[in-house]
Amino acid sequence: MLVELSMVPLGSGESLKEPVASVLNLIDQSGLPYQLTAMGTLIEGEWDEVMSLIRSCHQTLRRSHRRVITTIKIDDREGACDRLTGKVRDVESALGRRLKT
Amino acid sequence: MLVELSMVPLGSGESLKEPVASVLNLIDQSGLPYQLTAMGTLIEGEWDEVMSLIRSCHQTLRRSHRRVITTIKIDDREGACDRLTGKVRDVESALGRRLKT
Amino acid sequence: MLVELSMVPLGSGESLKEPVASVLNLIDQSGLPYQLTAMGTLIEGEWDEVMSLIRSCHQTLRRSHRRVITTIKIDDREGACDRLTGKVRDVESALGRRLKT
Amino acid sequence: MLVELSMVPLGSGESLKEPVASVLNLIDQSGLPYQLTAMGTLIEGEWDEVMSLIRSCHQTLRRSHRRVITTIKIDDREGACDRLTGKVRDVESALGRRLKT
Repeated sequence: MLVELSMVPLGSGESLKEPVASVLNLIDQSGLPYQLTAMGTLIEGEWDEVMSLIRSCHQTLRRSHRRVITTIKIDDREGACDRLTGKVRDVESALGRRLKT
Repeated sequence: MLVELSMVPLGSGESLKEPVASVLNLIDQSGLPYQLTAMGTLIEGEWDEVMSLIRSCHQTLRRSHRRVITTIKIDDREGACDRLTGKVRDVESALGRRLKT
Repeated sequence: MLVELSMVPLGSGESLKEPVASVLNLIDQSGLPYQLTAMGTLIEGEWDEVMSLIRSCHQTLRRSHRRVITTIKIDDREGACDRLTGKVRDVESALGRRLKT
Repeated sequence: MLVELSMVPLGSGESLKEPVASVLNLIDQSGLPYQLTAMGTLIEGEWDEVMSLIRSCHQTLRRSHRRVITTIKIDDREGACDRLTGKVRDVESALGRRLKT
């Protein structure tokens, strides 16, 4: 399944780049395919491995912040694999051209 | 922590009330405090118990649908409890009046 | 259409009840049907009236905070009206019993 | 401001690539900077121009589907510009290395 993860720690200033970086290290070490975007991080994997990783990310931010808002969006489709790059290619194919990605 | 759960099964018509009802039964049986709203279900509990419940709900819908989009929003705050009703009361207190809820 | 609005101002401490209260006053004055929940505010209305209201809410928070994350979820269904209370009743009807709401 | 747009039309099968492609054409013609990801489309611009574009995208899908769920996430930060690429660069800078994007 494909997952989009977004985390907002509260009470620590308006910049989020340091908290995002600390969480990105955990995601990178997991070995799961991922992509950082300007609005979140896309991760591909099975439920248990992705959710275990997200739990670690959330707990890491909660240790340094008193309040964390975490949003997880899951797109789970029968027989789908390699969706991190495949979904964009499918739309490009329907459009008949390449997109800026 | 407080969690908002929203699930959209694809490929089965525009009405979602039957899938929502099947998932609501699981949530009700969990014994966790919850509230159904017009846009999702709020659940209060610890990470492991809430996420285990959401996993069951998601798998239930995936058995009957080939694609399911599940969104989980977590508000996790140090020392917070009874947030399902307490958050609305806090805002009412700041406003100095009761709200329609 | 039915809309769920959630706003998180950054850089101002972990409590959100004062910013939420200031925005709730605007929503209340709009005259549109709404419901405050523990995770957001549900508003019912046509696109232009709801979006104009949300623009005012967002600008109000941006005047007092340097960064605001606003999430708007729209459920727009042909011929649907009175969804703020009707969607929950539909699920209760499918379940054959009343829910805690 | 930076906006993430996600649209799910209901009642038309499990594949979303054709609806996404029809909306992508509108976004491309707007001239606003955008990026298609596996979970949504990121768009950068001022409130009125981005929201007017999203209104057109939503209405286009509603003409061909009886129910559409549209999610709009806005990250609006004082003085921020070029965030579509700048936010990822900021995290890379905090990490001290380049990421797969």
